[in-house]
Amino acid sequence: MEAIKGSLALDAMGGDMGPLEVVEGLKIALNNGAGKLAQDPILVVGREDELIPALRLVGLQDDPRVRVIHAEEVIGMDEKPMNALKKKKGSSMLVALDLVKAGDAKAILSCGNTGSLMGGGTIKLRPLDGIERPALATIIPSLKQPFVLLDAGANPESTPSHLMQNAILGSNFARAVLAIPKPRVGLLTIGTEEGKGGERIQETHRLLKEIGDVIEYSGLIEGFHLFDSQVDVVVCDGFVGNIVLKSCESLFHVIKDYLKIGLNRNPVRKIGAALCKGAFQEMKAHFSPSEYGGAPLLGLRAPVFKAHGSSNRAAIAGAIKVALTVIQHDISDRILKDLEVAQKRLQLAQPGSPNS
Amino acid sequence: MEAIKGSLALDAMGGDMGPLEVVEGLKIALNNGAGKLAQDPILVVGREDELIPALRLVGLQDDPRVRVIHAEEVIGMDEKPMNALKKKKGSSMLVALDLVKAGDAKAILSCGNTGSLMGGGTIKLRPLDGIERPALATIIPSLKQPFVLLDAGANPESTPSHLMQNAILGSNFARAVLAIPKPRVGLLTIGTEEGKGGERIQETHRLLKEIGDVIEYSGLIEGFHLFDSQVDVVVCDGFVGNIVLKSCESLFHVIKDYLKIGLNRNPVRKIGAALCKGAFQEMKAHFSPSEYGGAPLLGLRAPVFKAHGSSNRAAIAGAIKVALTVIQHDISDRILKDLEVAQKRLQLAQPGSPNS
Repeated sequence: MEAIKGSLALDAMGGDMGPLEVVEGLKIALNNGAGKLAQDPILVVGREDELIPALRLVGLQDDPRVRVIHAEEVIGMDEKPMNALKKKKGSSMLVALDLVKAGDAKAILSCGNTGSLMGGGTIKLRPLDGIERPALATIIPSLKQPFVLLDAGANPESTPSHLMQNAILGSNFARAVLAIPKPRVGLLTIGTEEGKGGERIQETHRLLKEIGDVIEYSGLIEGFHLFDSQVDVVVCDGFVGNIVLKSCESLFHVIKDYLKIGLNRNPVRKIGAALCKGAFQEMKAHFSPSEYGGAPLLGLRAPVFKAHGSSNRAAIAGAIKVALTVIQHDISDRILKDLEVAQKRLQLAQPGSPNS
Repeated sequence: MEAIKGSLALDAMGGDMGPLEVVEGLKIALNNGAGKLAQDPILVVGREDELIPALRLVGLQDDPRVRVIHAEEVIGMDEKPMNALKKKKGSSMLVALDLVKAGDAKAILSCGNTGSLMGGGTIKLRPLDGIERPALATIIPSLKQPFVLLDAGANPESTPSHLMQNAILGSNFARAVLAIPKPRVGLLTIGTEEGKGGERIQETHRLLKEIGDVIEYSGLIEGFHLFDSQVDVVVCDGFVGNIVLKSCESLFHVIKDYLKIGLNRNPVRKIGAALCKGAFQEMKAHFSPSEYGGAPLLGLRAPVFKAHGSSNRAAIAGAIKVALTVIQHDISDRILKDLEVAQKRLQLAQPGSPNS
C-alpha cells in the first residue's frame, strides 16, 4: 500500500449537513490561506462515491493539497457512542483516528457524533504523559480579542490537578491559536474573597500559584468578568464550562431575536435598521461560533477537533484553519515540558521536601 | 415602645449609591402600584438624620405607607461579613433583620454587604422545616416570559436533596412572582443522554421524578435551552448558577458595547441608529436586571431579598415590587406542605418500604 503522509485527517461524514458542506468548507479554508499552513495534504475521509463527486463539484478534484481516503461506514449522530465505536471499525471517524494513530495525519477534525469522537480519540490516541483527563477547549469571541475557555464538557468532575493540567493545555493552545506569547490564565469561580468557591477552587488556586511562571496566572475570575478581556484563558470544570458556553450561545440568540422583532415594529424603525444593517451583520459575524468552529480535545498525543454537528461551510472552514494552526505549532512538546516543570515545582512545594 | 407593624423592612443604607437612591426607588415603586400590595407600611431602616431629609426631598415624609426605623450603624461593602455581624448589632441590616425576626416585618430587602445579609438572614431567621440550605433565586428575562434560576450562589456545593428542595422553593416563588399556576421545572445539566452530567445530577433527576406532582418536573435541560422558555424554573447548584448568571450579564454588556461601536462607525449608520433608537432602548430595558432587581434568599422563615450593591432607583423599585408580591402570596405555607408531601413520596419510594 502506498505510504500516506497527511496533515489533517478530515472526517467528511457524519455532520448534519452532509459531506458536500464539509468539502465546501474545505474549499473556503484553502482559498483563505489555510493551505499554506499545511505542508502535507489534508486527508478527506469518507465514502469515495460521495466525496469524489463533491470535490469535483467545488473544483478540488485534482488539488494536490487534498487527498481522499475511503471509509465505507458512517457513525450516525444518534448512535450510542461506545456501541458505534465497537461495531463500525470501518467508519470514517475511526479510519481518520487510525490515520492519526499511525502518524499518517497529525490531528483529526470531525463534526460527527461527539461521544464517539471523544471516546474514540481518547482510546486510540491516549493522553500525553502527565495528563490525567483530556479537556475540550473552545475559543469564545469578546469585545476586542477572543479567549479560550476549557474544559467545555469533556470532564464534568474535574479535580484540582485536572484543572491545573487544563491551565497548561489552555495556555499552550491560546499561545498557538490566538498568537499571544504569554496568555493570562484565570480560574473561574463565584467570588474572589478568601475561602469562596469551595475547597476544590481554593486547592486549584494554590496549585496554579505554586507552578510559578509555567503559566501567566492572573488568579480567580468571576463570571462578571468573563467577557471583559482580563484573561486569555478561562479554566473551569467540564460541567460549568459546558453550561456557560451553551447558556451564552442561547442568550446571544435570544438577544438577536428580540432586537429583530423590535426593529420590525414600525416603518421608521425598518428604515433605520436598513441603514445600519452593516452593524448587525458585523455583530452576528463577530459573535457567531463560525469563526472558530473547532473545539479541540486537548491533552491527547494528537489533538482531536470537534465541530458542531450543525456546522455550515463557514464554521467548518474556521475549524480547519484552527486545526492546521495547532498542527503547525506542534504544541505537544511544549505541553510536556510545562507539565514536567509544574510537577517538579509542586513536589518542591510539598511539606517535607528539602526546599519547602 | 410603640408597636411596630410593617410589611417590608427596607435596609436603606449600605448600597453603593446611598440612601437617597433607595428612597427614590421606594417612591417609584409606590407610584407604580407597589403600595397596594402592602397592607402595612414599609419600614425604612437607617440613620434618621439621612433618611428623613431624603424622604422629604422625594415627598414621602408624611406618607402613611412609609415609616422610618432608626439604626445608627451601617455595614460597609468591604467589611468581612461575619465580623460585621458580630460588631455592628446596631446596623441598619441587623435592625431590619430583627424586625423580621420579631414578626414586625414580613421580609427584608437590602442592597448592602451580600455575605452579611446571607449570613445574618440565615442565623436570625433560621431555615424552614425541611430546608437544609437556603437558595438564592433570580428572575432572568428571556424572549417572551422571564424564568427563575436558583441557586444563584448561596450554596455552591449542593447535594441532590438540596437541589430537590431548591426545585420546590423555585416552583413556589415562580407561582407567586411570575403568576404561573404550574411552573415547569428543569434541572440544568450538560447533556440529556442517560448517565450524563455525573452521579449528582442523575440522583437529583431521580428524586425530582419521584416526588411526583409536587412540582411540574420537565426533566433535564441543557444550557442551549436556557433562554427558550421550555421551563419556568431552572434548578442548579450555587456555583453553576452564580457563574451562569454573571457570565450572561457580562455577555449582554459586551454585545451592547459592540453594537454601539458598530452603530457609530459612519454617518449613515448613525442616522439609522437614531431612527430605531426605540428598539435599542426596549432591548436594554428588557434584558437589564432592573425590572426584577431583587434576588431573594428562599427557604428561611421569611424571605431575605438582596439587590445588587450598585442598584439604581429603578432596580430598587423592581426589587421592592417583587418583595411585596412574595409577602402578599405568603409562600411559606405552601412550601412547607410541598416539602412534607415530597418527603413522604421519597420514603415510599425507598427500597424496603411497603409500597416500593
